[in-house]
Formats: sequence, C-alpha cells, structure tokens
Amino acid sequence: MNKVTESILKSDSIAITYHQSPDGDALGSALGLMLGLRKIGKEAYIISRDKVPGIYRFLPNTEEIKENASCPKKNTHCVIVLDCGNVERISGKIDKSKINPVINIDHHISNSKYGDINYVDTMASATGEIVYNLLKSLDVVMDTDIAKCLYTAIITDTGSFKYSSTTASTHLIAGELIKTGIDFPLIHRTIFENKPLRKLKLYGKLLEKVELFLNDKLAIIAMDKEHSTLLEDNSEIISLQMQIDTIEVGAFLKEVDDGIKISLRSKDKVDVRAIAEIFGGGGHEKASGILLRDMHDIEKAKKALINVLEKELI
Amino acid sequence: MNKVTESILKSDSIAITYHQSPDGDALGSALGLMLGLRKIGKEAYIISRDKVPGIYRFLPNTEEIKENASCPKKNTHCVIVLDCGNVERISGKIDKSKINPVINIDHHISNSKYGDINYVDTMASATGEIVYNLLKSLDVVMDTDIAKCLYTAIITDTGSFKYSSTTASTHLIAGELIKTGIDFPLIHRTIFENKPLRKLKLYGKLLEKVELFLNDKLAIIAMDKEHSTLLEDNSEIISLQMQIDTIEVGAFLKEVDDGIKISLRSKDKVDVRAIAEIFGGGGHEKASGILLRDMHDIEKAKKALINVLEKELI
Ligand SMILES: [Mn+2]
Ligand SMILES: [Mn+2]
Repeated sequence: MNKVTESILKSDSIAITYHQSPDGDALGSALGLMLGLRKIGKEAYIISRDKVPGIYRFLPNTEEIKENASCPKKNTHCVIVLDCGNVERISGKIDKSKINPVINIDHHISNSKYGDINYVDTMASATGEIVYNLLKSLDVVMDTDIAKCLYTAIITDTGSFKYSSTTASTHLIAGELIKTGIDFPLIHRTIFENKPLRKLKLYGKLLEKVELFLNDKLAIIAMDKEHSTLLEDNSEIISLQMQIDTIEVGAFLKEVDDGIKISLRSKDKVDVRAIAEIFGGGGHEKASGILLRDMHDIEKAKKALINVLEKELI
Repeated sequence: MNKVTESILKSDSIAITYHQSPDGDALGSALGLMLGLRKIGKEAYIISRDKVPGIYRFLPNTEEIKENASCPKKNTHCVIVLDCGNVERISGKIDKSKINPVINIDHHISNSKYGDINYVDTMASATGEIVYNLLKSLDVVMDTDIAKCLYTAIITDTGSFKYSSTTASTHLIAGELIKTGIDFPLIHRTIFENKPLRKLKLYGKLLEKVELFLNDKLAIIAMDKEHSTLLEDNSEIISLQMQIDTIEVGAFLKEVDDGIKISLRSKDKVDVRAIAEIFGGGGHEKASGILLRDMHDIEKAKKALINVLEKELI
C-alpha cells in the first residue's frame, strides 16, 4: 500500500478507470476514490469507454463519466485501474508508454499484475474495501458521498454480505460507512429491488416452467428464442431457481443465434466447471457456462445434460 | 445490563423463553443464550409451547425444545424472556407469582416492560445483538455454535443488513461472529433460499398476475381462496412485488373464510397505516393490514382500495 500512497501523493492529476461493463464495485470504487482524492486537493477524474448502467446512476458524480472521455488528459501523472484482472479488459484507453505509473488495484485472484505498481488484495471482498483502506491511509475523512459509493461497491460484490468472500473487515468497513448517515436501505432497494414489471412477469412465467430431474436434485429452466431477447441478464432468474430446497444443481438453457447457451450453478456438492468442460465450456466450481454451437434442439440439449449429471447426482 | 448480569450470576438454573410463533431472532437469541450460559456453568434450558419451524432446525440443540416442556422446572431461579413485547405473547407458561425475577430482554419500541427486570434496547437491530453483548459482559467466549445462533438472529431481523435498524454495532457484531469460522453463506441459503418447488411455481403464477394502477404507482396481486390455502406466509411474495421499479405501494389481497384480507406495503412516501385505519385495519407506516369482514367480491375490494389511494398517489 505504501508505494500506492507515495505515487498518489506525488501526482497532481490522476486518471481512474476500471474493467469494461463496469459493475457496482468498479463504479463505486472509482467514484469513491475520485471524490476522496479531490478532498486532498488532487485533480482526479474517471476515464471510461463504457456508459454508466441505469441502476448505478444514483451514485454521485456519475454525470462526469462520458464514453467519449476514455483517454487520459494531458499532464496526467498516473492512472489507477480498479477491479480489473487483466490489461485487455480495461475500460479506459491507456498508452502504457506515455503514462507511468499505471497503478493496478484489485481483489481478483486471477489478476495478471499488469501495472507498474500492483496492489492486489485477494482477501478483500470488493475493490471498494481496498479503496476504503487507501483513503484512510491518505487521511481522507469519509463523507456521505464517498460512503454511498463504497457501500454500493461492497454490497454488489458480497450479495449483501452473504457470499463467502465477506470477512470481519468487510463488516467493520460497512459499519463505518453507514455511520456517516447514508440511506443504505434505499441503496439496497435501488440495486437489488428495482425491476420493470415486464421483467418480473417474465420471471413469473419462467418459474412456472421449472422442471426437476434426477430425484429433484437438478432444476432446469429452458427458454426459447422469443423470450431470450427479453432477458439481457440471466443471473437473477438463476438465483430464484437456486432457491428450490431439494436441488444441488440449477441449469438455465437459452436458445441463441449460434446454438444453445447453458448456465450452470451448484449449491455445494457438484463441480459444475468439470461438467461444463465435458461440453467444451468452462467457469468456476459453483458457476459455469456452455455454448452448444449449432445445436437448436432444446430437448436434446436437456437430455445430454441430464445424462452427464446423472453420475454426479444419483 | 448490570442488573441482568447480577441476576444471572446469582441463579443456578435459568429458563429461557420468547414470543409465540418464534422467528429466527427469538430462536437464535434463546439458543445462543442457553449455550453461552452453559459455558459458565449454569443449568439453562428453553421453555416453549411452540414447535421449532423446519427452517430453523439447523440451529444447534433445537431437539431440546419440546412443545410439552413449556413450564419452568422446579428450582428454577429466574426466567429470561427474549424478543417479546408483551406478557400475553410469551411462549413459555410462566407463573409470575412463583418465579422471581422474570427478566425481559427485548428490542421492540412497543415493549410493555412486564418483567421484574427490563432490559429493552430499542437501538438493537435484533435481540441477538443484545444477547451477544450480554454474553460478552459475562465473559463467555464465542464458539461456532453460539455464533450460528446469534448470526441467524441478526440476519433474520435485518433482512441481511438491509433494514434501517442495522447499525455500525450490528456490523461489528456480525464480523465478530463470522470470525469464529461459521459457514454463514449456508445460513443465508438455509433461511432465505430454501423453497419447495410448488411455492416457487405459485410465486411465478402470482407474479404473472400483478396489476398496476394509478400511474403504475400501485401494484396489486389478488389471490382467490383456492390458492390462498397453498400460501401460509405472504411476506415473500409481497417482497417480490415490491421490487417493481415504478411502484410506491404494493397490495396483496387474499380471499379468506370471513372476508378479504389486504396486506399493504409502502416503499417510502405513503403512510399505509393511515390507509389501513380508514378500513378499520392497522399496523406500521410501511406495512399494514386490513380485514374486510364479510366482503367476498375481490374486484370491489380492489376498487375501494384504489379510490382511497388515488389521493395519495396522483
Ligand atoms: Mn470486484
Ligand atoms: Mn426481534
């Protein structure tokens, strides 16, 4: 952390960026850091080729983030990249030969240490946690705007303190942040409970269609192309499906142009990365994905999946 | 707190109880306190006329709670009542003329101070928080079993740290509890994500039926008698309905034998207790209930509700 604070203290103008398709941790960390650095007299700003997604526009100063401002300004002394595991995914356009140092601050185990200075804390539940500690070591006094940003970062990446990445420090920091008086119940509602009616009705329709297999240990939702286009993000409907008491594995099948996409989730016992790899897919132990290229028969895809999972679940 | 610890230290045998239809806070607090008191050599046990609901049976020592053991044993020196606002709702059968002191430990503002000793901390998010502090002041060392109980108490009453009752202390305590190494993600899944398929399918059906009124600010789900019998607890489906982005008020109408029951929830701007009172109901600002006795026409009930809410929402 010392090298990071030294570099920051030496720089007057600091550009901040994050991974492409920024989420609550990327945006919250970046905005929180920007506001904090301004409080100690730095010119700090965000570079991004991504728009701010609608649900995060409640965060302070998001109107400053513009897709056409993706390069560092002249006379920028350093660039801080937040929550981004590898150089290919950086949202801001950085020419590493022109700017030194690039400071890489992240919590992903897979981080490739692409920075001139790398601060990768894999114990942190969110990059927002690291930014909190960084601002503390720069003697920045928390205010409600910074707290809103960092609280958003933390609850996004911990699913409101329920994922195993949550630690005692996560809670300690969350406590300090809510002490500033932020309306954190509103932040929860804004992030997690803010769905258009058509989405909720589609969820209703899909939940009615859940099928159980293999002694009720496997749940499958299969969605045809017509509905696929209505649903940009599967993660919520998969989370709902995973709430079924009897299941170990949940599968979400979706017809797309070039075949059938399968998302797999596991509660505990099955390594769904291994299952995905059998079909040429990949991912993590508890969440993985498959694309069955040129396959368009959903029933056939289901059967193939059930066959493979039979050995694991029965 | 001193009076409480003094009484406990003087007592060898301590009965613990809570409110009827115990929830995660009642059960978690009671079991955590029981296990903690045993660690300092007390004979501690739970009296209850209620069964332990299925979803809380994962808590340690729940097999000791038996509906037919609802009275204090002979030679019990004191009874501790947890999480219970008034004497009528106590689950254990206590004869106050026979046992002294009755220690009332709670966090409800409405607590009627019915104990010989009353420790009511309305700033605590859950009675589990108070029990944590009590065990600390009795020098009980936390272990995983106690931590499981108190963590369950806290997340039940705070909706996983999202309700406004959550404070910095809540987070501090949660952090200390997870430090013991408990599998808190499993506790979350057990409590919040553990639904039978038929319930999830019924939720699906009901979500498809949501109707919006008054410029999309009011959402209504109406459920006929046939479905009513399938759903013991409305709170989850109402929470799902409240996730609609445009609404301020959510209403859940349900045909019952003696009329139509209406549950009202408000996000922010409308005082639904005032609305409920117009119909002879009551409750809180953000959650209230009505029974339209002898009414059996759901469409008529909807219209009456829309009429009253029109003034508030348009
Ligand atoms: Mn992150
Ligand atoms: Mn309680």
